[in-house]
Amino acid sequence: MRGSLAERILATVRDVEDFPQPGVTFKDITPVLADGELLAEAVQAHADPYRGRVDLVAGLEARGFIFGAAVAMELGVGFLPVRKAGKLPGPTVGVDYALEYGSARVEVHAQDLPDGARVLVVDDVLATGGTAAAGCRLIELCGGSVVAVEVLTEIAALDGRTLLEGYAVRSLATV
Amino acid sequence: MRGSLAERILATVRDVEDFPQPGVTFKDITPVLADGELLAEAVQAHADPYRGRVDLVAGLEARGFIFGAAVAMELGVGFLPVRKAGKLPGPTVGVDYALEYGSARVEVHAQDLPDGARVLVVDDVLATGGTAAAGCRLIELCGGSVVAVEVLTEIAALDGRTLLEGYAVRSLATV
Repeated sequence: MRGSLAERILATVRDVEDFPQPGVTFKDITPVLADGELLAEAVQAHADPYRGRVDLVAGLEARGFIFGAAVAMELGVGFLPVRKAGKLPGPTVGVDYALEYGSARVEVHAQDLPDGARVLVVDDVLATGGTAAAGCRLIELCGGSVVAVEVLTEIAALDGRTLLEGYAVRSLATV
Repeated sequence: MRGSLAERILATVRDVEDFPQPGVTFKDITPVLADGELLAEAVQAHADPYRGRVDLVAGLEARGFIFGAAVAMELGVGFLPVRKAGKLPGPTVGVDYALEYGSARVEVHAQDLPDGARVLVVDDVLATGGTAAAGCRLIELCGGSVVAVEVLTEIAALDGRTLLEGYAVRSLATV
C-alpha cells in the first residue's frame, strides 16, 4: 500500500547530521525534488486550496524558488522572488530580521507586487520561522496581503508557528 | 496584435544599468515571473521540445531554480538543483570554473542523478556561459547526458555558445 503524501514525503526527506553546523540535523528535501511523481503531487497539494484565491506566489530564496514557481504555474499566477539582500537589481523594499547570531534581510522588487495583491508564501522547510515571518511582513509593507504560508515540511520542535502567529500556516508533512 | 513569445519576453525583461557592477547592464527577468500568463507560456515553451525525451531537469542556482522546477513539473520529471559551493548538505560532486576575476564551483548530490539520466539544463539568462558549461560538465561527470540547455534570454554579444560548443542550446529570446 502506498502511504499518504505526508508519509511519502517524510520517508523521502533525508536527515543530514551536523549541517550547516555541528549539532544541527538538516532536513534535505532534494530527494523529493528528484522524484518527479512526488514533486508533482506535492506542488498540486500546495496549490489546491488556493485556486482562484491568490494573485501571486512568493518564494523564499533559494529553495522556496523551486516549489514556489511550480505552485505559481499550477495556479496560473505570477511568481515573486523574495531574495537575500543585494541580489535584486531594481529598487527594492526590504525587512531586516534577527538570526541566532546576527541578522539578515529579505528584499523584493515592490514594483512587481501590485497593491492589494493576495499572496501565497511558499518555502520548503519551516524551522524557526524567521525568514518566513520577515517575508510576510515585507509583502504587507508593500501593500499585499498574505493568504497563507505553505511549506513542504515543518519541524515542530522549532515552533516556527509562534513567529507566524496570525498567519494561516500549512505544511504537507510534520516532523 | 500580440507579438510572438520572444517579442513579449524582450518587451518585459528590464534593463538595469550598472548592476551588479558599474558598466554592466543587467537583464532583469523578474517582470516575466510577475506576469502569470507570460510565465506559464515561457515554461511550456521550454518544456515542449522535450516531452518524453528527458528524465530530469537541472536548474542553475538561483534563478534557474525558478524556471527549472516549473519545467520539470510540466514534463512530469524530477528536478536537480545545481548549487553553489557549500550549499548542499549531502555528499556532492563539483566542478570548478573560471570567472572574470577568480573562480566559482557548482555542485550536485550525485546520488540524485541516476546513471545514464537524460538531463535538460535550464537557466534564466545565457551570458558568458561559464556556469552553464560547468553545470553540463558536472552532469556528465556524474554519469548523466545533457539533452539540451534551455534559457529564457540569451545575450548574443557575450557569445555564451562558444563555451557550450557541442551542446544543443536554445533561448526563447535573444538580445
